[in-house]
Amino acid sequence: MADHTAFELTVNRIRDALEEGQFSEAVRFLLELHPADQAEVFNLLTDEEQDVLLPGLDIAATADLLEEMEDDEVLEAVEGLSTERLADLLDEMEPDEAADLIGDLSPEQASEVLAQMEDADEVLPLLGYPDETAGGLMTTWFIALRRHTTAEQAIDFLRHLSPDTEVPYYLYVVDRQQRLIGIVGLRHLVVASAETEMEAILDADVIYVEAGTDQEEAARIMVRYDLTTLPVVDEEKRLLGVITFDDIVDVLEDEATEDMLRMGGIESDQVLSTPYWDQHIYQVVRSRFVWLLLLFVTGTFTGTVLHHFQEQLTLVVALTFFIPLLIGTGGNAGQQTIAMVIRALALREVRPKDAHRVWWKEAQAGLLLGTMLGGVAFIGVFAWSMDARLALTVGITVTAIVTWANSVASVVPLLASGLGIDPTVISGPLMTTLIDGTGLIIYFTLAGLIYSWL
Amino acid sequence: MADHTAFELTVNRIRDALEEGQFSEAVRFLLELHPADQAEVFNLLTDEEQDVLLPGLDIAATADLLEEMEDDEVLEAVEGLSTERLADLLDEMEPDEAADLIGDLSPEQASEVLAQMEDADEVLPLLGYPDETAGGLMTTWFIALRRHTTAEQAIDFLRHLSPDTEVPYYLYVVDRQQRLIGIVGLRHLVVASAETEMEAILDADVIYVEAGTDQEEAARIMVRYDLTTLPVVDEEKRLLGVITFDDIVDVLEDEATEDMLRMGGIESDQVLSTPYWDQHIYQVVRSRFVWLLLLFVTGTFTGTVLHHFQEQLTLVVALTFFIPLLIGTGGNAGQQTIAMVIRALALREVRPKDAHRVWWKEAQAGLLLGTMLGGVAFIGVFAWSMDARLALTVGITVTAIVTWANSVASVVPLLASGLGIDPTVISGPLMTTLIDGTGLIIYFTLAGLIYSWL
Repeated sequence: MADHTAFELTVNRIRDALEEGQFSEAVRFLLELHPADQAEVFNLLTDEEQDVLLPGLDIAATADLLEEMEDDEVLEAVEGLSTERLADLLDEMEPDEAADLIGDLSPEQASEVLAQMEDADEVLPLLGYPDETAGGLMTTWFIALRRHTTAEQAIDFLRHLSPDTEVPYYLYVVDRQQRLIGIVGLRHLVVASAETEMEAILDADVIYVEAGTDQEEAARIMVRYDLTTLPVVDEEKRLLGVITFDDIVDVLEDEATEDMLRMGGIESDQVLSTPYWDQHIYQVVRSRFVWLLLLFVTGTFTGTVLHHFQEQLTLVVALTFFIPLLIGTGGNAGQQTIAMVIRALALREVRPKDAHRVWWKEAQAGLLLGTMLGGVAFIGVFAWSMDARLALTVGITVTAIVTWANSVASVVPLLASGLGIDPTVISGPLMTTLIDGTGLIIYFTLAGLIYSWL
Repeated sequence: MADHTAFELTVNRIRDALEEGQFSEAVRFLLELHPADQAEVFNLLTDEEQDVLLPGLDIAATADLLEEMEDDEVLEAVEGLSTERLADLLDEMEPDEAADLIGDLSPEQASEVLAQMEDADEVLPLLGYPDETAGGLMTTWFIALRRHTTAEQAIDFLRHLSPDTEVPYYLYVVDRQQRLIGIVGLRHLVVASAETEMEAILDADVIYVEAGTDQEEAARIMVRYDLTTLPVVDEEKRLLGVITFDDIVDVLEDEATEDMLRMGGIESDQVLSTPYWDQHIYQVVRSRFVWLLLLFVTGTFTGTVLHHFQEQLTLVVALTFFIPLLIGTGGNAGQQTIAMVIRALALREVRPKDAHRVWWKEAQAGLLLGTMLGGVAFIGVFAWSMDARLALTVGITVTAIVTWANSVASVVPLLASGLGIDPTVISGPLMTTLIDGTGLIIYFTLAGLIYSWL
């Protein structure tokens, strides 16, 4: 279904139809697809083709399509629309998606279009919440009933909803002040007798969040408790909206890539909120420069180490040849350990207080790996240089550096996590720089010992 | 709710109650929590405390608790149970969770316990599917109806299900051969009149997967089409089971950490399937050694480069001091670019065929970043050494290396992806090694030019 080649085929069919002037054919090809696939195909069309096709879709189809597109693509697609048509579209869209789009418009455009909307009252309450909070994620399309509503009345109410309305799996029961007092699953409603009151079948043990809750926390709660929907309330516990599970998948994926960006050394907050092609080059430079500079300044430490061992470098120039290889190997071993430990932390398999046990396990693995690799290094260097002292120095350094790198890399993420610092922030390049510098000290200290003894 | 301190408090209350011999108090403290939280608290208890507590829970509570625990914890918890109690427990658990547990038992234990189970027929069909397929993820708890079943009959059927059965949001309509022909949302059932047949309200446009489908693909499909449940069929389209959304969250998270492990240079397949503390040290070493060795051998390239420029190294020993700093900076800039590009690839913001545009953007950013950082380097090195040629060499090299690293790191993941290779595999340490070696060539070539001209 989500097959890329199939999409290219559909794009070609649409393109051919448009070229032959068979406009309604082109529209039909697009509408045959699931809205999620429509969005994919739509994005593969040129701007001109999009502009021709979009007015040919009815309002409902356009709304479905836009709901599946990325924020910036939506903005581009609606650029040419009249305020009137845009207002109709927004009325048709899910309130949370509509609010996102309105938030991206200029203030004048936003107020104009809100003035023309019929269902502006569904969207207005959502505009006040920051994007990254539960309030920014929720929709106002939910069904709130009162305690004494009967099953028959509730079903009647559902019957009169527009059939397009997104399916609510739960009905919410609120008191006179709109405060959430329980939920009723559709499943319990369906098997209840007609005169059963909501009070009798509601589950009062509802998990909910306040509107200001961070969206990641809201997502975590839904995952933890296997919820398909999560009610959002204000500080008086009045029901404001509902987060549905499709919204949190994006949050979880953002979180994962955010970790990756951090490990790559990129200030992620602003970058995350902007699609790749919309990031201005100055924004890119700003998000990376401070980190690069910090690492550069930290890295001068390695120069100081080398300067300190200048005498040995002058005496045995061949020691220089192995500098990048040795610090590279230390960095690689450290990266492997970090990846393992951060994953184990995320899965809660290890906790900061286990630092000692984790260190012991990783140091052992490092010693074993380092010995094997050191053996390879000794043989390789000896075969190349026929210099036993050089080969011994490099071989033992490999063993020591891998053990040391594993030790540092196992403990630092746990310490960071224990201190409440996100381990992904310091675990990538910063750790590598640390291992680089200390690795060189190990190398030249060992060289000094071996060359003075043998 | 998921607050760690709160859990520690509950652990202490349970511990105190157990010490004072107030066994039923201890059980009550545990059962007050949501099952997901119970599992968390249970894991914080010692093995002895767990062994005392577990027999005090009724079968239903134990099943709820086990369903929330990780596979290896479950295995540990049920170790001491009699075959009879284990069989009762498995009857109570959701079939997919029960199948997972049975799969972890020894063959003898598994067949003994299956022989004693009442609902073995729910679990047996699940045992044949590999863990990482849709079949391994699905449950057999779903409701299949026939085309001419009326709404009243369907509701009656729901009414007679045990109230504990996980809520099905959808009913599945199958033909005489059990082939899937459509789904009916509970919401459509609830508003249908009593005599409406399923045929009239079913949605025939069902998205489904075959049992052999990779679990990641099944998860992707559910995310893409916003599905809370996904039916699983055999090659004849006969309905076998259903995947629910809570099962796919784990799959998505595994996928994210798998990418991180790969970028860290760890062969992830076997490591992923084993919890951290259960990985034997030889398993750890095996999963990392090949990769470390590969990088080590590739890394000897840097030694060859340095050997080639031996003359310059001997003449200007100070050039050596900046080797780790320069290749480190190149590696850091490359990591940043890789993180950005892989993320943009994952979000489908860029595609392999955009390589040229991505390269242009990243090279520009590299030039700008490199120039700024090169300026800092020039000033720093000049202030330290009062040597203009050295400062110029290092400064210009920084600019060149950052631009080069950004260029390489922008294009390689896209090429890999275009060739069908997972970009995370080659984008981490392998890329850094490549940038190390080529960066040194840039450094000494520039040094040669500058020292011979000035």
